[in-house]
Amino acid sequence: MTAQTQDDAPLVVAGRSFNSRLIIGTGKYKTYEQNARALEASGADMITVAVRRVNLSDPSQPRLVDFIDPKDYTFLPNTAGCFTGEDAVRTLRLAREAGGWDLVKLEVLSDPKHLYPDMAETLRATEMLVKEGFEVMVYCSDDPVYAKRLEEAGACAIMPLGAPIGSGLGIQNPVNIRLIIEDAKVPVIVDAGVGTASDAAVGMELGCDGILMNTAIAEAKDPIRMAKAMKHAVIAGRDAYLAGRMPKKRYADPSSPLAGLI
Amino acid sequence: MTAQTQDDAPLVVAGRSFNSRLIIGTGKYKTYEQNARALEASGADMITVAVRRVNLSDPSQPRLVDFIDPKDYTFLPNTAGCFTGEDAVRTLRLAREAGGWDLVKLEVLSDPKHLYPDMAETLRATEMLVKEGFEVMVYCSDDPVYAKRLEEAGACAIMPLGAPIGSGLGIQNPVNIRLIIEDAKVPVIVDAGVGTASDAAVGMELGCDGILMNTAIAEAKDPIRMAKAMKHAVIAGRDAYLAGRMPKKRYADPSSPLAGLI
Amino acid sequence: MTAQTQDDAPLVVAGRSFNSRLIIGTGKYKTYEQNARALEASGADMITVAVRRVNLSDPSQPRLVDFIDPKDYTFLPNTAGCFTGEDAVRTLRLAREAGGWDLVKLEVLSDPKHLYPDMAETLRATEMLVKEGFEVMVYCSDDPVYAKRLEEAGACAIMPLGAPIGSGLGIQNPVNIRLIIEDAKVPVIVDAGVGTASDAAVGMELGCDGILMNTAIAEAKDPIRMAKAMKHAVIAGRDAYLAGRMPKKRYADPSSPLAGLI
Amino acid sequence: MTAQTQDDAPLVVAGRSFNSRLIIGTGKYKTYEQNARALEASGADMITVAVRRVNLSDPSQPRLVDFIDPKDYTFLPNTAGCFTGEDAVRTLRLAREAGGWDLVKLEVLSDPKHLYPDMAETLRATEMLVKEGFEVMVYCSDDPVYAKRLEEAGACAIMPLGAPIGSGLGIQNPVNIRLIIEDAKVPVIVDAGVGTASDAAVGMELGCDGILMNTAIAEAKDPIRMAKAMKHAVIAGRDAYLAGRMPKKRYADPSSPLAGLI
Repeated sequence: MTAQTQDDAPLVVAGRSFNSRLIIGTGKYKTYEQNARALEASGADMITVAVRRVNLSDPSQPRLVDFIDPKDYTFLPNTAGCFTGEDAVRTLRLAREAGGWDLVKLEVLSDPKHLYPDMAETLRATEMLVKEGFEVMVYCSDDPVYAKRLEEAGACAIMPLGAPIGSGLGIQNPVNIRLIIEDAKVPVIVDAGVGTASDAAVGMELGCDGILMNTAIAEAKDPIRMAKAMKHAVIAGRDAYLAGRMPKKRYADPSSPLAGLI
Repeated sequence: MTAQTQDDAPLVVAGRSFNSRLIIGTGKYKTYEQNARALEASGADMITVAVRRVNLSDPSQPRLVDFIDPKDYTFLPNTAGCFTGEDAVRTLRLAREAGGWDLVKLEVLSDPKHLYPDMAETLRATEMLVKEGFEVMVYCSDDPVYAKRLEEAGACAIMPLGAPIGSGLGIQNPVNIRLIIEDAKVPVIVDAGVGTASDAAVGMELGCDGILMNTAIAEAKDPIRMAKAMKHAVIAGRDAYLAGRMPKKRYADPSSPLAGLI
Repeated sequence: MTAQTQDDAPLVVAGRSFNSRLIIGTGKYKTYEQNARALEASGADMITVAVRRVNLSDPSQPRLVDFIDPKDYTFLPNTAGCFTGEDAVRTLRLAREAGGWDLVKLEVLSDPKHLYPDMAETLRATEMLVKEGFEVMVYCSDDPVYAKRLEEAGACAIMPLGAPIGSGLGIQNPVNIRLIIEDAKVPVIVDAGVGTASDAAVGMELGCDGILMNTAIAEAKDPIRMAKAMKHAVIAGRDAYLAGRMPKKRYADPSSPLAGLI
Repeated sequence: MTAQTQDDAPLVVAGRSFNSRLIIGTGKYKTYEQNARALEASGADMITVAVRRVNLSDPSQPRLVDFIDPKDYTFLPNTAGCFTGEDAVRTLRLAREAGGWDLVKLEVLSDPKHLYPDMAETLRATEMLVKEGFEVMVYCSDDPVYAKRLEEAGACAIMPLGAPIGSGLGIQNPVNIRLIIEDAKVPVIVDAGVGTASDAAVGMELGCDGILMNTAIAEAKDPIRMAKAMKHAVIAGRDAYLAGRMPKKRYADPSSPLAGLI
């Protein structure tokens, strides 16, 4: 085939390449085994792990690492459940000690009702973590001003929410996501809010570099099949973005010219 | 894997099985060669051909069949440019004589401005064609009452428009598409209106059995890549439908339980 | 004020002028008295009445006309519950005998699940009624082809549904409503589907000549206040349509020029 | 009428009552006279004025106050064009000296491309202004976390943007606006993004206490008529919110019971 249809470049975050632009989570699955099968079906290279909740090291209990091998996948420790910068730093230091992980996902939450990030504290925590040598992917609001600040503070990826965590409402504000993408020099990855395959495709069509999701897969009736759906949705949205969609038209435009036929 | 994640059943139309749930067209491509490459990238088994416009038989001119082999793909002759039932019947008789094709797509148009079907004439033409032994897939409005009538008249697939032909506006009325699907005993295939990958996924998530599109691929900046996007979008939407999406929630629902952490 | 801000022309249907572009119904109210108060709050001049259900003439039972005086309001008899043209004609003959009403609203339904009109039968019934001298406002699907047919058959107003009757989903397909309006020479009145005030405004902003609604008012928690909301919504949407809205822009455009300030 | 339909309470901001829930601006009008006529048509009590741009005091030039009398309307000085807290404070001190105004609207912008507020600086400026005794209404992002912070810092009204200033795109993220409203103890007024009447109605239906707009009126083809449309739209949305809308239904629900008729 020709140049224009060659393969897409990989997703590069903090100098590391990933074949898949989908990142999945480890919450809400019935078992670690189901989680492992969903991961496989999703085609993701990267999986995010709530350090404060997931058993990474106690061998007397079922451990995630017995089902998903950190040699095969990039583990992305996250700070779910942290409400201050200090909490987040402490949590990620533990993760680094436990598994050597320094590519991390920061989330500093505010109110449990909406689980939105506290952006002032998130920015402060980003600065703290960057200073300690972490590569920080940052869960954030869809405020383009803060997205730029995070990048300036050294975030290696900007991860705006599409909708409240676990809501499945789809991307609420494509205008903001687009503004963030247009200004970003690091990858933009929608994190939170995807409910079904078309939501993921929409995000990629906006020009996002990737999508992170958890509930949409884990709480589908058939999580394994939904993981497969999401693999295809992210590829579909990415290819549609790269292909350049047709313009929308107010009226019909015949596939088969009508001239001479009418 | 387990039963719940086994492969999807094929699309069956008029007793014939198709691996792909995507059908593409032959209008607006720059060349037959580009059309052929898009078809290959799309993974479609079926391609619809405007009998009155596409050169099927004159060997002195470039012929579609020199690029796309009717032995490898199901050709679906259509009646683009027909405005009466008699026109449509005459056109499809020619197609049957030329290629032996009796699985056909009927469209009986009204006003060139919107290219909507004339439903009364479409129903009459369906009856005429069924009587002549054709297997008739029918382009129609999204009116659930007429969709049912077409089925009762013997249509082997109902093909409601999602938006005006060539508009790329996406599915305008999911309520009607859903009503048609809930009542149909034959496959429902959205025909017309898809503009990008997520539009196709949305259609499949509603429960459609397939999608037919032309302009969204042919008028993308890179038609071959868009064809690939659409292949994945249809799979993604189908799998998401089969997987059963998570419910939407008004508020956040943490992936990682906050109990004990706050 | 100047010419451009002069009062809107009245709605004219079948040669009669109406000050209000809102038409309300008589179903689902708790009492005829509540219905009467909602009518007053709505500012409507016209009220539609299901001839087969509403007591118009039996003086031993509560009668609508004891609460709403046909001398003050235009009664618009409708054929709710009719499934054939003959049914509809018979019903409206009764109405004409009872009250002398010859401006009528035709609805010929199909399936109780969606209460969509049977368009073939609706067209036939329109022709029958026009022949008998009725002025026929016609509830119809949003199919632009049939809308034109109804006009050609003599309908004095085209009344496309915005969504299923009683669903409150809002106008599902603005593309179709717009196509109908662009082609119509008689008033286009959205009938069915409005759920709240903004839905009515959206309809008027599309260029509709009026809105008919019942459930949105009758099933609001406070029907009288909702009737008032709808009065304002229809005026708002009409004025916005006449005023000509600003274009949408992808980026910000400062109200206060930034030049010299930054 | 009964208690349930009594008049709405007035909008109260910083202890002052306003009959209208619409606030309009002073940018982009062709003349001060047109601005004055739009104000009158809009029914607004409050008008916001960019202190750095509008001539309030130089008697050798046309002055806004010669067309709109500060005794008849509440002037709301704003800090359009300010990019730091210090700028904003300086600007509003001038306004206080010029007209005695201490009810003010703060906006601290970031990037001219989207004119989004810089929320960290906005919060700091709010604190500075509150300390100086101003009553501060604050233009802000739709981030519920910052909205709460502003309230805690003493803002007398929270004014989240619906979409970029001057874009006319309508409210992009109703989820966030709703979250802000549910948590707020001071009025929430959507500021920026409204393009037409239904957009304003949608904002009020979400439960906003008011709407501020400028471009939607000033850049309509007929600003005076659009001002009137907005007056009605805000009333319509408010009444619909107070009335309590009907629930949405997936299927039809007949206005006229079909029992006994079919």
